[in-house]
Amino acid sequence: MAVIGRKALVTNTGSVEERLDRALTAIAERTYWSAYPEHPKAYGEDAPGEGEARFNALLGAPFATGQESDRSVEVEESSPFGIELGITYPEVSIDAAMDRAVVAGSGWAAADPRERAEVCVRILDRLAEDSFTMAHAVMHTTGQAFLMAFQAGGPHALDRGLEAVAYALAEQERIPGPLVWEKPQGSRPPLVIQKEWVLRPRGVAVTIGVSTFPTWNGYPGIFASLATGNTVVVKPHQATVLPLALFVRTAREVLHEAGFDPNVVQMIVDPNGERIAKELVQRPEVGIVDYTGGSAFGDWLERNLPGKQVYTEKAGVNSVILDSASDLKGVFRNLSVSMTMYSGQMCTTPQNLFVPAEGVVTDEGVVSYDDVVSGFVGAIEGLLGDDERAASILGAIKGADSLERVDAAAGSGTVRSASRAVANPDFPDATVRTPTIVEVDADSDAFRREMFGPVIYVVKTPSRQASVDLALETARDHGAITWLAYATDDDMVESIVDAAVTAGVGVAFNLTGGLFVNQSAAYSDFHVTGANPAGNASLSDSAFVANRFRVVGVRRET
Amino acid sequence: MAVIGRKALVTNTGSVEERLDRALTAIAERTYWSAYPEHPKAYGEDAPGEGEARFNALLGAPFATGQESDRSVEVEESSPFGIELGITYPEVSIDAAMDRAVVAGSGWAAADPRERAEVCVRILDRLAEDSFTMAHAVMHTTGQAFLMAFQAGGPHALDRGLEAVAYALAEQERIPGPLVWEKPQGSRPPLVIQKEWVLRPRGVAVTIGVSTFPTWNGYPGIFASLATGNTVVVKPHQATVLPLALFVRTAREVLHEAGFDPNVVQMIVDPNGERIAKELVQRPEVGIVDYTGGSAFGDWLERNLPGKQVYTEKAGVNSVILDSASDLKGVFRNLSVSMTMYSGQMCTTPQNLFVPAEGVVTDEGVVSYDDVVSGFVGAIEGLLGDDERAASILGAIKGADSLERVDAAAGSGTVRSASRAVANPDFPDATVRTPTIVEVDADSDAFRREMFGPVIYVVKTPSRQASVDLALETARDHGAITWLAYATDDDMVESIVDAAVTAGVGVAFNLTGGLFVNQSAAYSDFHVTGANPAGNASLSDSAFVANRFRVVGVRRET
Repeated sequence: MAVIGRKALVTNTGSVEERLDRALTAIAERTYWSAYPEHPKAYGEDAPGEGEARFNALLGAPFATGQESDRSVEVEESSPFGIELGITYPEVSIDAAMDRAVVAGSGWAAADPRERAEVCVRILDRLAEDSFTMAHAVMHTTGQAFLMAFQAGGPHALDRGLEAVAYALAEQERIPGPLVWEKPQGSRPPLVIQKEWVLRPRGVAVTIGVSTFPTWNGYPGIFASLATGNTVVVKPHQATVLPLALFVRTAREVLHEAGFDPNVVQMIVDPNGERIAKELVQRPEVGIVDYTGGSAFGDWLERNLPGKQVYTEKAGVNSVILDSASDLKGVFRNLSVSMTMYSGQMCTTPQNLFVPAEGVVTDEGVVSYDDVVSGFVGAIEGLLGDDERAASILGAIKGADSLERVDAAAGSGTVRSASRAVANPDFPDATVRTPTIVEVDADSDAFRREMFGPVIYVVKTPSRQASVDLALETARDHGAITWLAYATDDDMVESIVDAAVTAGVGVAFNLTGGLFVNQSAAYSDFHVTGANPAGNASLSDSAFVANRFRVVGVRRET
Repeated sequence: MAVIGRKALVTNTGSVEERLDRALTAIAERTYWSAYPEHPKAYGEDAPGEGEARFNALLGAPFATGQESDRSVEVEESSPFGIELGITYPEVSIDAAMDRAVVAGSGWAAADPRERAEVCVRILDRLAEDSFTMAHAVMHTTGQAFLMAFQAGGPHALDRGLEAVAYALAEQERIPGPLVWEKPQGSRPPLVIQKEWVLRPRGVAVTIGVSTFPTWNGYPGIFASLATGNTVVVKPHQATVLPLALFVRTAREVLHEAGFDPNVVQMIVDPNGERIAKELVQRPEVGIVDYTGGSAFGDWLERNLPGKQVYTEKAGVNSVILDSASDLKGVFRNLSVSMTMYSGQMCTTPQNLFVPAEGVVTDEGVVSYDDVVSGFVGAIEGLLGDDERAASILGAIKGADSLERVDAAAGSGTVRSASRAVANPDFPDATVRTPTIVEVDADSDAFRREMFGPVIYVVKTPSRQASVDLALETARDHGAITWLAYATDDDMVESIVDAAVTAGVGVAFNLTGGLFVNQSAAYSDFHVTGANPAGNASLSDSAFVANRFRVVGVRRET
């Protein structure tokens, strides 16, 4: 392990340059790779305790991002685990942030793309050093259980960030350096022109953070924008500020050490009771907006910012098509985890389980619809029967509206498993609920919208093909990010792949082991296809980075 | 020269595969290359006469694109050279076109990207065979003089199309084929997942044609969409239909021969007195819109089609900054051509000439402002003094509104050269005018908007830096595609480059020879940067193609 500055650097590769080159290979090959270890033990014995102590020291105090500010403001940040956060953040006006971004932008835009990419990797590396502090920050602001908060908030988010840096660098390096262009003119002397191309950023890139996965969903856009020379202003979700504040502090430190103006990265928070995002994104200095969150504001952003590049990840309705399976026990084991982890608060969590009325074909014959549903419900109730284990899987509920949806869902069909409160032994004030499992018919409207949170619909479909058609219809009309399908028949598999391609939804087949459909791997799995209403923030592909910079040609007669 | 089918194939390279591979190299290197010869003589002795005869045979008759249609409709097509066109086109309803596009789309989307790219090259090759017919069609519908119509409507447009095919193929080939993803799990067995990625198109791609350069501006979007698996519906400009109709007919022939449904490419025209574009682009089947034309409709497209990918090339105000020069004669010689060719009806034509009140520094001392303006006006009047030569440079005026602008401009300042009618010896009814040259002060509003057509403003600026500032201001506020600057001082050159990068405008310096700023070369010069209000249709870069297809991941547990 290399050592930079204060602490041991924890990565799976050697130098910054090697890590960047390896990431460039990874995005081309798309086989397994990771730059930052996901196992907490890789970070050494002292890291967990130190990280927890650093997190605790942040509570109840003003947080210093290093931005110039006269005062610290209260925000609406809250912990689903019920602890008192009480952190205040620097007050920065939109005017001041824009002025500072413009000043900071010229030096950053003028830097060589590879130099910028390396500074980005150094920011990611520095964040990796402190993944335990980030883990506690993510856990206590989002409600994720500790291990998920560590992995998704730390190394997995860092890998997604590095992936975006690699894409951005690859795209910029496709533009050649200065050259002489010589056009033959028959018997006359050739036309000889010196040409060069200057890359320029779009402007200020605003990232509007989400309450549940602020770093995992935030880093790709932030790092894609930084690597392409834009300055970044982070506007965290009003209820989940600390994780992105940690990012901003770290990024500014590394930028300063690298000789850049730290205002290349800034943060503006919503003061308690105020919402500043609309005013912020409409500023003329802003050229890019990255957004993760609900569809209402996402749709507004997509329609009201002409001339700006907007990337969104919005709501979606994810489906499980249970058509046929070798072994239903493995199916239920896998589903019971994927449909309950973090209480369904992942944008990739399956919401609807489509089961044909005729039952499910297995290696041991057809299992009736009722037995399938009973088996599924039993698997979930079994997994969550013990409060301590349930708490470690479910985490805690972030939004009050998610709790309201649990109640609302119960009235929309036959409740097969009622939601119950779960006691978290470590955090008595944590908001923990098991999911409500509601059975509905195929003509119900209930499952045809996103019910973010611990709500599961079992939909009784009139036929095996109807399951596919319903998944397709909901994805087209309301968006979707994931499908999980169980099918043993080649024709049915092909039919489901066709429907997934039409719907623009990534699909996983026959998961019964250790991979859950919720998980998407950096450098390999794309996240959000951009081909249905769930959004266009495809993590990461060329389309996610190519429009974050523009190219200006300079021609000179020789 | 290879021979396919009926006629000699005229290209600069051998097989279709070689041509495609060479284009892939060309877009990476950006040095000079061309696939289709620009010299008419390269096409053989018989080609000119045959092309003219084929064009004449099309006049006054229904044009058959090969589309199913019950009747042929009249359109508003007109010739600036005053000949009677009288061509009618197949009537196709939007409903029918959408239904046919969807049917045709499945086979096209399922084809391998390289197979699609090769079919696209075969379409371009087939068009190249008949570049003389296209030249006459472009000339007589747009008003371009014959040689420009031949080059810009034929080989240069084909090169831009091939460039887009190469970009599209390169982008698709960045996605790997099926693979096994294996994630280590410490002491446990690894997670092993089979992965594949399915490329899918966005839907139906609509190209809304322009009246002046229908093929040059149309092919890039059309071929980028085709190569990425989309079906294409062409809606030509109501007054310039034939060139894109020739494309549609040829594309359908080649698609059919290659075993694809010819409805992969269709055309819908505006029947006389009707405008169908708004209804067409709002259809849910449409996923992509490519537009070249005025800003009003372009802005509407950008703001009113959420979820669809819209590429525009709109109005712009192009500038010449005349700061300092070795030799003013060469400057005036070059400017007199670039500012008058095709009567200023190119989106790349300079409109404003900024000259500082203090005069222009040359190798022989400072030349006063008045002498500079006199020299410039004299060069243009000299070049256009002879009617026959003037007609060959000016072409003819396409739009009645361009004529109105000539009159309007004369009232906005001091007329230094009045527009006059020019007789075209071959076409007595041609609408030919020399440009009006109007002198205005820097605080005038007149030059701060696009005055498409034969209107030139000479702007007297208070200082050398003011010239740069005014060019920047007009580009930022109203868009711009080209700047041409004359500057001999390194600091001033650097200052102008900085301003051009800020304005997002390609800039050429000190052109006095055979290259004119209006010309942009496929495989080397980008056209429209996407960084100012002139539009985002950058011909061609990754951003122009990457969002025309989406990727759906398929994962399978092994």
